[in-house]
Amino acid sequence: MNYFLTDLPERTHKPRQSGFTMAMDKGLSLREVEDFLSVAGEYTDIVKFGFGTSFVTPNLKEKINLYKSAGIPTYFGGTLFEAFVIRNQFEDYIKVLEKYGMEYAEVSDGSIEMDHDIKCEYINKLSKHCTVLSEVGSKDAEKIIPPYKWIAQMQAELDAGSWKVIGEAREGGNVGLFRSSGEVRSGLVEEILTQIPFEKIIWEAPQKAQQVWFIKLLGANVNLGNIAPNEVIPLETLRLGLRGDTFMDFLDIDSNEITR
Amino acid sequence: MNYFLTDLPERTHKPRQSGFTMAMDKGLSLREVEDFLSVAGEYTDIVKFGFGTSFVTPNLKEKINLYKSAGIPTYFGGTLFEAFVIRNQFEDYIKVLEKYGMEYAEVSDGSIEMDHDIKCEYINKLSKHCTVLSEVGSKDAEKIIPPYKWIAQMQAELDAGSWKVIGEAREGGNVGLFRSSGEVRSGLVEEILTQIPFEKIIWEAPQKAQQVWFIKLLGANVNLGNIAPNEVIPLETLRLGLRGDTFMDFLDIDSNEITR
Amino acid sequence: MNYFLTDLPERTHKPRQSGFTMAMDKGLSLREVEDFLSVAGEYTDIVKFGFGTSFVTPNLKEKINLYKSAGIPTYFGGTLFEAFVIRNQFEDYIKVLEKYGMEYAEVSDGSIEMDHDIKCEYINKLSKHCTVLSEVGSKDAEKIIPPYKWIAQMQAELDAGSWKVIGEAREGGNVGLFRSSGEVRSGLVEEILTQIPFEKIIWEAPQKAQQVWFIKLLGANVNLGNIAPNEVIPLETLRLGLRGDTFMDFLDIDSNEITR
Repeated sequence: MNYFLTDLPERTHKPRQSGFTMAMDKGLSLREVEDFLSVAGEYTDIVKFGFGTSFVTPNLKEKINLYKSAGIPTYFGGTLFEAFVIRNQFEDYIKVLEKYGMEYAEVSDGSIEMDHDIKCEYINKLSKHCTVLSEVGSKDAEKIIPPYKWIAQMQAELDAGSWKVIGEAREGGNVGLFRSSGEVRSGLVEEILTQIPFEKIIWEAPQKAQQVWFIKLLGANVNLGNIAPNEVIPLETLRLGLRGDTFMDFLDIDSNEITR
Repeated sequence: MNYFLTDLPERTHKPRQSGFTMAMDKGLSLREVEDFLSVAGEYTDIVKFGFGTSFVTPNLKEKINLYKSAGIPTYFGGTLFEAFVIRNQFEDYIKVLEKYGMEYAEVSDGSIEMDHDIKCEYINKLSKHCTVLSEVGSKDAEKIIPPYKWIAQMQAELDAGSWKVIGEAREGGNVGLFRSSGEVRSGLVEEILTQIPFEKIIWEAPQKAQQVWFIKLLGANVNLGNIAPNEVIPLETLRLGLRGDTFMDFLDIDSNEITR
Repeated sequence: MNYFLTDLPERTHKPRQSGFTMAMDKGLSLREVEDFLSVAGEYTDIVKFGFGTSFVTPNLKEKINLYKSAGIPTYFGGTLFEAFVIRNQFEDYIKVLEKYGMEYAEVSDGSIEMDHDIKCEYINKLSKHCTVLSEVGSKDAEKIIPPYKWIAQMQAELDAGSWKVIGEAREGGNVGLFRSSGEVRSGLVEEILTQIPFEKIIWEAPQKAQQVWFIKLLGANVNLGNIAPNEVIPLETLRLGLRGDTFMDFLDIDSNEITR
């Protein structure tokens, strides 16, 4: 840090199990990746290549290597897994993961329908090759999943071999964990946390209001995902209470009043 | 493409008449242009220097040449044409186009009022110098143009020498083709398409929801415009059905259900 | 400028007292700063390192020097001042300003409560070390400050040694000068201007609609702040009437009608 301030929340250090930030790369150039890493590499724990962007992005191998040389693993967004599965190309997907030396992979069912035990089989199969993240929650705004089902699914996926589970929000932050207004379904989150350890969950929180909400509820070291690369530094200030929205949250004082 | 997937919609290749993406540069630096081209050059067909940004952008000539050397033509936004015309400086505008070696130019009347035959005369005059794009629709949210008039104007402008016509949305996507909420005026679009061939129209669709709407209605190879440079790659995944919003649209199957 | 247009509003030149643009850097990399400066350096008068980003940004000293070598001073956002003060570390703050050679500093009370004469004492103390900008208005959406109080506070802060006062909007533009909808509290602005000279005020206007509103009311050379780096060029076109929103505002004609 550039100077000393008292009473800051203690942040975890790499390799982090909590206090984890997952950023989403939607098509950065190699030089933009270098720029991103030069500023936010220390605060970024893993990078997702959003949805099918890895299919069309040039220089993919070089890009993966750039992140790797900065100690940051990458993975393909779950929509890509689904695109292979719905085409009956799961074996091809394994080959793609191998070709690019991917050490992480995501299993999701946001755009496809599958029995949850089939999903868990995929998690189990992939976990022989990679560290698996699996995503719970539908991208479909109409499809409301009740809390007990979120919990049962998260637990089953962890049991099947997932390293962490991801609470789905979709990039715009208006489905899954969030109401169509972008507001967090707070009852849902609280109920999940009675059963699943918080370091096992990455909460997708692309919008600032959502980040603020999770930090206020779960503290500086909550795992957050789908963060835009140029929002990782601003997020870090939220985690530390150095932005208006969380300014008082980590201070051990009763009042924000300044007297002589 | 980086790997093989079955059942993808066939995309057109450069030089494209349909499946065309027009990106808007609102003031990128030279290095940012290089970054943009290194990632999205293959998927970008033409670049507009938005409104009057070409007046204040340093190194304009170098920037135009950077795009040109990547095989991507550029043009000045229609607002600039209007700024010259309202000042009685149309002859000066021709000289500016020549000075910068512009091969494309836009004629619009979003901020000025002129009889449509005067507009068509400008299209005709400019078409002796450049390939002309002309824009239909007002930037004024109050000014509702009925469908038959959109069609008559588009046809007259093509007859006067326009290469393609542009359906106006304004950068924020809330006037012209769109209601103030950002919603597409769908009846308008459908009626236009009964008369004007779809490869002759570039639909301005700066927001993702608009891009999704046009791709669902008109397919992967609809011409779209006013795309932010860093949204060209995400747009390409929408066109290919590799993002949640259009995931099922190009699959020749009835159900998204996965069974054993 | 790249070509000649008649009837443009006259813009002030550096060093500007009015027509001033303050940009907010929320965590640019060194190379991104170079990119920003290469395009918008001429139109940027001062750069704020937003809230506590200076605490976590790597290479801070190099970054400050990059801006300095382009003739653009920088300062730390007021939230950082507040973070030091609430921790009883004001003396440390002075040392940080010295360590980084800061020539400007901001005093604000957006997140803390202090009597206004205490705030003015801080302004006075800091004005011995730096040129002081001070911010009026609360970040708290609930806390409505009546116009006479804005005026009294602005005047007292200028008297205490502030170089300019800043009308608070918070980054998202939805508190302070703005209603929660983002709409400008127009009566408030007009009343302030009856008492405080307009070159003494920087209006925070991160959103385009707000920039348009201030330019229409106060002209091309209004001081605006919290502008995103990649919005400085588009803002410049608004100031010059070369974008749809302000197209007619600087033309000395009654009608936007074009005739033969």
